[in-house]
Amino acid sequence: MSTRRLDPQRRDRIIDAALECIAADGVAGTSHRKVAARADVPLGSMTYHFDGMDDLLVAAFTRFAETIAATFEQRLADAAGTEAVLEALVALVHEDLQRSSAEHVLTYELYTLAARRPQFRALTQAWMQASRRALERHLPAEVARRVDAYVEGAALHIALSPEPQTPAQTRSALDLLVA
Amino acid sequence: MSTRRLDPQRRDRIIDAALECIAADGVAGTSHRKVAARADVPLGSMTYHFDGMDDLLVAAFTRFAETIAATFEQRLADAAGTEAVLEALVALVHEDLQRSSAEHVLTYELYTLAARRPQFRALTQAWMQASRRALERHLPAEVARRVDAYVEGAALHIALSPEPQTPAQTRSALDLLVA
Repeated sequence: MSTRRLDPQRRDRIIDAALECIAADGVAGTSHRKVAARADVPLGSMTYHFDGMDDLLVAAFTRFAETIAATFEQRLADAAGTEAVLEALVALVHEDLQRSSAEHVLTYELYTLAARRPQFRALTQAWMQASRRALERHLPAEVARRVDAYVEGAALHIALSPEPQTPAQTRSALDLLVA
Repeated sequence: MSTRRLDPQRRDRIIDAALECIAADGVAGTSHRKVAARADVPLGSMTYHFDGMDDLLVAAFTRFAETIAATFEQRLADAAGTEAVLEALVALVHEDLQRSSAEHVLTYELYTLAARRPQFRALTQAWMQASRRALERHLPAEVARRVDAYVEGAALHIALSPEPQTPAQTRSALDLLVA
């Protein structure tokens, strides 16, 4: 216990290490042992901080979802007026949501987990609610819902296509959805 | 070799077994040994028909993508006129693409694989092209691209949300994108 007082960031480090491990080896390839090694903490520390692997997965994906939701918030925060909001959304789809293949892997690993085990849909639901709330600061709720689904699909198609759509094409679609 | 002549469907059976295995245990949890057991074929038969696990993954996900693309084709085949196309798209999003959590898992497993290993993006690209071609029988190419991205995002949000959007909400968004 004394080491814990000296290392209050240990729980945080474990969560970060779990996300690195999931990005590298997937949820299926992630174990307490691998995460402990990556976080450089004793194996016993895992069970002290987390009530099993599911608890760690919830903590890790909650942090990841909050990071992406914060990106939505930041990108939209300064947008004043419809034109600025639309440009922010194009940047979100083509830049923020295309930052790294590790983020894509984590996103789809979470979707796979939620599809396989319904109890993890609380995480995907919380994530969708967070991004919709960010959009609702600028758009009516019904428009935010539409835009959120389009942003999801467009970002995914851009990530996985060798010939992705252009920002101008994304903008045209958003223009119609926001009309 | 003689057993092969007596069992020309063996390659097919292995592919189906691979998809069942991926749906149950993920790409990471799929092995030659598990697939052979599920397909009820000798382990040697795996290396006879497939040049390693990547070759089997390509064959399995190609078959899966073709199945989903065929669903697009069938749903849209009889739709004459914009109203019928829009209703077909709503049914596609809310019914065809929500058939089973196994199909959701396979879809996101493929996305994860393509995000992690770019050489698998030929598969996701072929899939996107197939669904866009089906849409382009009824819609101009630019509209088909927009609708395809929206269909992807909406189907995903419906699959992973405990409070999914309604068919009427999907229809409203499609009305705007097709306008």
